[in-house]
Amino acid sequence: MVDISEPIKLACGVVLDEHQLMVETYGTLNADRSNAILICHALSGSHHAAGWHDGDRKPGWWDHYIGPDKAMDTQRFFIVSPNNIGSCFGSTGPTTINPATQHPWGPDFPPLRARDWMESQHLLMQHLGITCWAAVVGGSLGGMQAMRWSLEYPEKLLNSVVIASAMKLSAQNIAFNEIARRAIKSDPDYLAGRYLENDRVPRRGLALARMIGHVTYLSDVAMAEKFGRELNIGNFSVGEKDPIEFQIESYLNYQGDKFADDFDANAYILITKMLDYFDLSREYQNDPVAAFKHASCNFMVISFTSDWRFPAQRSREITDALVGAGRNVSYAEIQSDQGHDAFLLPNTRYEKVLGGYLSRVADQLEASTA
Amino acid sequence: MVDISEPIKLACGVVLDEHQLMVETYGTLNADRSNAILICHALSGSHHAAGWHDGDRKPGWWDHYIGPDKAMDTQRFFIVSPNNIGSCFGSTGPTTINPATQHPWGPDFPPLRARDWMESQHLLMQHLGITCWAAVVGGSLGGMQAMRWSLEYPEKLLNSVVIASAMKLSAQNIAFNEIARRAIKSDPDYLAGRYLENDRVPRRGLALARMIGHVTYLSDVAMAEKFGRELNIGNFSVGEKDPIEFQIESYLNYQGDKFADDFDANAYILITKMLDYFDLSREYQNDPVAAFKHASCNFMVISFTSDWRFPAQRSREITDALVGAGRNVSYAEIQSDQGHDAFLLPNTRYEKVLGGYLSRVADQLEASTA
Repeated sequence: MVDISEPIKLACGVVLDEHQLMVETYGTLNADRSNAILICHALSGSHHAAGWHDGDRKPGWWDHYIGPDKAMDTQRFFIVSPNNIGSCFGSTGPTTINPATQHPWGPDFPPLRARDWMESQHLLMQHLGITCWAAVVGGSLGGMQAMRWSLEYPEKLLNSVVIASAMKLSAQNIAFNEIARRAIKSDPDYLAGRYLENDRVPRRGLALARMIGHVTYLSDVAMAEKFGRELNIGNFSVGEKDPIEFQIESYLNYQGDKFADDFDANAYILITKMLDYFDLSREYQNDPVAAFKHASCNFMVISFTSDWRFPAQRSREITDALVGAGRNVSYAEIQSDQGHDAFLLPNTRYEKVLGGYLSRVADQLEASTA
Repeated sequence: MVDISEPIKLACGVVLDEHQLMVETYGTLNADRSNAILICHALSGSHHAAGWHDGDRKPGWWDHYIGPDKAMDTQRFFIVSPNNIGSCFGSTGPTTINPATQHPWGPDFPPLRARDWMESQHLLMQHLGITCWAAVVGGSLGGMQAMRWSLEYPEKLLNSVVIASAMKLSAQNIAFNEIARRAIKSDPDYLAGRYLENDRVPRRGLALARMIGHVTYLSDVAMAEKFGRELNIGNFSVGEKDPIEFQIESYLNYQGDKFADDFDANAYILITKMLDYFDLSREYQNDPVAAFKHASCNFMVISFTSDWRFPAQRSREITDALVGAGRNVSYAEIQSDQGHDAFLLPNTRYEKVLGGYLSRVADQLEASTA
């Protein structure tokens, strides 16, 4: 837990006098503090990006890519992974106490933008005595933060790695987020967001929200391969009227229920709104080329062929804008059947592309240090 | 309202001793009763396929395609449009009285398969004194019925017109249906399906179910064109913390609420299950070619390029199986940005393709009658 005692002025105008961040780090900061990578998590992510904690059912969410000899090599880099404000894994957010009321913030936590996460990460950076990130890396909403960093603090990162992301959400993306939010708000246990003070949890709504999200993270092909039309319960014999349940149904219901145990409903509403609001070039006359002219770092953009939440086309648009702005950019479109989830899953080519890029970054750092 | 007094044995084994069908017809049955077209509605459809009733906010759901000089020309055809059992527009279903209990059937209405709708339509056919349909026509779940007709009563239809349909649902299709069902069942007003007897309606769950369905009926492109990221409420100025709402959000919420006024929750659960269960070739060793060898009518198969609920690929599979089985089939893939909803919407080429096909059917009928 890191206490950030400097005030932060959020985009909505509210000032948080102080805030706390749960942070994990992996690897060792080198003598000239130049080998730090910032990991930006996505909607449901946490600071726990790699390794195992006591009681973990599975390792950190990016464990496959962070560690010794992995794509983000902890023998060469110092990896900083904060849980961002507004989330629910210990950092200041809807589940923590609002000092003004001594009750959980709940629905009163101020609305956030991706830039607020970046500003909080910037204060964390100062707290750690780091003046320039070797790279800022993130997938999905994490990629949005990596892009925002390149515009707001161009001199404070050398590389921005933008994975399975987009410069703004489509109407369809917003639609799915709104249905998820309405599912939560429709749950009578939501109590206009004041469920914590009333010892209630809108589990039904939160489970539904996750189920909706989950379908959009998976590809049609991946679901067909994993579940097809296999049955969990029942059969189709004529004369049979007992219930029939497909495996995909029990899988989704399980995923929904599990998420309802782990995540906070107000945080889910808050962070999906942050996703909806993000629009990289809104303040640059809606011109992404004009936006990226403010950047000076190098970029790596990665997309996945079967991702229909943030399709490869969105990443090609990012790449085209970067090229148009005269930035150095590498772009890789990774073949995968795993949909949007691919950015979290093992994939040899993804591993090589990301590892290769960061290995060159480390080579340069070590050469300039030596 | 048509009383069907013959018993019907459903696929689940339950026998309905009698049942009622709400039916609309358009046009005139000719002397030798050969010019009848059966319209099969989809998930949320009704018998009201064309024209205006008192108080209608809009005409019947296929009004653009049924009428004088329209694709289904009521000057040449007698169009029969029943509301199917298990639905909620007056035909026997969850909202009507179960004679055994004198309460609404509610959740006790027996599970249905597409073949049950076909069997009920077959009894209606006998009731009307029709021995052979000139065509059976349907979109989506309606197309599934049109296909089932061709296998079960091959001698009782001359043409099967299968629009925006599929031989079976994918895991992703089932996933969205299950989320919709869970949304309904999570609503405390659902009361395990006994809401009618308790003067309650699970409006919140039903609205959510519709919102989920609605997003899958529209294409990403159509939503982008119609709504983009336009705002309904609020603005993105820095320092602004009032709510922001996108137009797509208010649109979807409106659609959900409207549907909750018009449709029945138990019927929605029942009919989405029917969709999930449909598998054309399950009883033909999962071989659609073997299945269609039982058919003898001619086929018209139509798909829409931006339909991602039942993509064009599903229709090409139907067409390939029909060709493999040696059936006569015309296939048209219609350019459209409207997604699955395209089958209900004005589209000049769709109109010409469907109208052209049925006009040749009418020509042949009239030649053989003359």
